[in-house]
Amino acid sequence: MYTLYIGNKNYSSWSLRPWILMRELGIPFNEILIPFNEPGFPAFSSISPTAKVPCLHDGSERVWESLAICEYLAERHEGVWPKDAKARAWARSAASEMHAGFGNLRNVCSMSVGLRVELHKVTPELQKDVDRIGALWSEGLQRFGGPFLAGPTFTAVDAFFAPVAFRFQTYGLPLPKPAADYVKRVLELKGMKEWYAAGLAEKWRDLPHEAETPTFGKITADLRK
Amino acid sequence: MYTLYIGNKNYSSWSLRPWILMRELGIPFNEILIPFNEPGFPAFSSISPTAKVPCLHDGSERVWESLAICEYLAERHEGVWPKDAKARAWARSAASEMHAGFGNLRNVCSMSVGLRVELHKVTPELQKDVDRIGALWSEGLQRFGGPFLAGPTFTAVDAFFAPVAFRFQTYGLPLPKPAADYVKRVLELKGMKEWYAAGLAEKWRDLPHEAETPTFGKITADLRK
Ligand SMILES: N[C@@H](CCC(=O)N[C@@H](CS)C(=O)NCC(=O)O)C(=O)O
Ligand SMILES: N[C@@H](CCC(=O)N[C@@H](CS)C(=O)NCC(=O)O)C(=O)O
Repeated sequence: MYTLYIGNKNYSSWSLRPWILMRELGIPFNEILIPFNEPGFPAFSSISPTAKVPCLHDGSERVWESLAICEYLAERHEGVWPKDAKARAWARSAASEMHAGFGNLRNVCSMSVGLRVELHKVTPELQKDVDRIGALWSEGLQRFGGPFLAGPTFTAVDAFFAPVAFRFQTYGLPLPKPAADYVKRVLELKGMKEWYAAGLAEKWRDLPHEAETPTFGKITADLRK
Repeated sequence: MYTLYIGNKNYSSWSLRPWILMRELGIPFNEILIPFNEPGFPAFSSISPTAKVPCLHDGSERVWESLAICEYLAERHEGVWPKDAKARAWARSAASEMHAGFGNLRNVCSMSVGLRVELHKVTPELQKDVDRIGALWSEGLQRFGGPFLAGPTFTAVDAFFAPVAFRFQTYGLPLPKPAADYVKRVLELKGMKEWYAAGLAEKWRDLPHEAETPTFGKITADLRK
C-alpha cells in the first residue's frame, strides 16, 4: 500500500495534486498529514529528501515532487494520463507548465481553502497568469471535448490545476465562461469536497501562511472552524 | 522529423535540456534557433503557446515545456529514462525537482556559457541550492553506480542538470568530489562540446541577459567571439 505524506489541507497546494489524483482514480493509499510548523509531528526532512510535501512512499522507495509522483503512478495504474496520445502530450505540457510556472498566481493568491479574499490590486503580471489559465483551459476543453481538461475523464492535468480551482474560489478572479464552469465542476468532485471539508475543519494555523494573505488582499470571510 | 525550437545557445538553459537529450540519444531533429530580442526572427509566440522556448513540433503537434518534451520522446524512443524502475522513479523525482526548484541558483547564476564570473557573494539561499545539488548528484551516482546520475547511460535527468554543469563552470562554485567529477564528465560529452562551441560563436548579445550577470558578480573572462 502506498503512503502519501501531505501538508495541511487548508494550505498545501502541492499536496493536493497527487492526493486528488489518487482519490479520483480510486487508487488506495494511506494518508499521513504533517502540519506545517507544529510541534509533536515528524520533521518533513525525515520523510522526504527535499524536506517538502508531498512525498509518496512505496515500500522502501520514496518518490518526491508532485509531478514525479504522477508519472510513478502512471506506470502502475490506468487513467493517470489521457488514453489519446495527442491529449496526453497536451496534458503533460500543461501540467509541466503549471509545475514550473504561474509564479505570480502562486505568490499573490496562495492557497487557503477556507478564506475569501478581495485582492488589493490585480497587477498586470497576475492578470497575465490568469489570462493564460483561461486560454489554456478553454483550449483543452474545446479541443478534447470536456468535461475535463484533456477529455472525458479526470487525469493528472486536472489534478495539477485542482489547487487553482480553490484559488479562484478564494480570490474570486473572473475567468472566461468555459473556464469558470470548469472551476465549478472541479469543486463539485467528491474528492475535492472531501479535501475542502477537511481543510475547513483543521484547527492548526500556520503563522507564515496566515501572515501572507493580508499583504495581498482583504479577508472578507474565514469559513474555517 | 521533429523540429526543436530553441533560444540562444549561450543563454537558454531550458532549451539545452531537450536538445542535449536528443543529441546524446541520437534522435534526429531539425533545430531552429530564435535569438532573444533580435529583429528579423519569428516571435516566440508564433511557435509556442507560452511564447517560450524550447518547443517541439512533431507534424501538427506542439509540445511545450522541457519536461513534457522529454516524456513525449520517452513514449517514442528507448533510453530517455533509465531502464531500471527504481532508477527511473529517482530520475523523474530529481528532474521534477529541477523543473520547479533551485530558484536561487537559477536567478543568481544565470546561464551564459562563455562567461567566467566571480560572485560578489554566496548567499545562504544560494549555498542551500548548491548543497542540495551536491547531495542529490552524489546520491544518484553512488546508488546507481554512475557514470551518469541514474546509472550507466545518459538519460533525461542528466539532460535536466546539463545547464547546471555550465553554471558550475561559469561561477566556479565548489562541489563535493563525486559531483565535481560529474560536472567534468558532462562538459566532455560530444553534444555538450558542440553546444558550447556554438554558444561561444554566437554574435548576438541580449541586453537583459547581459545586464543581469554584473549585478551578481564580477566578469573575469568573456570567451565569446
Ligand atoms: N515542486 C514540489 C514543491 C513542494 C513544496 O514546495 N511543498 C511545500 C508545501 S505546499 C513544502 O513542503 N514546503 C516546505 C515547508 O514549508 O517547510 C512538488 O511538486 O512537490
Ligand atoms: N518551464 C519552461 C521554461 C521555458 C522558459 O522559461 N524559456 C525561456 C528561455 S530559457 C524563454 O523562452 N523566455 C521567454 C523570453 O525570454 O521571451 C520549460 O521547461 O520549457
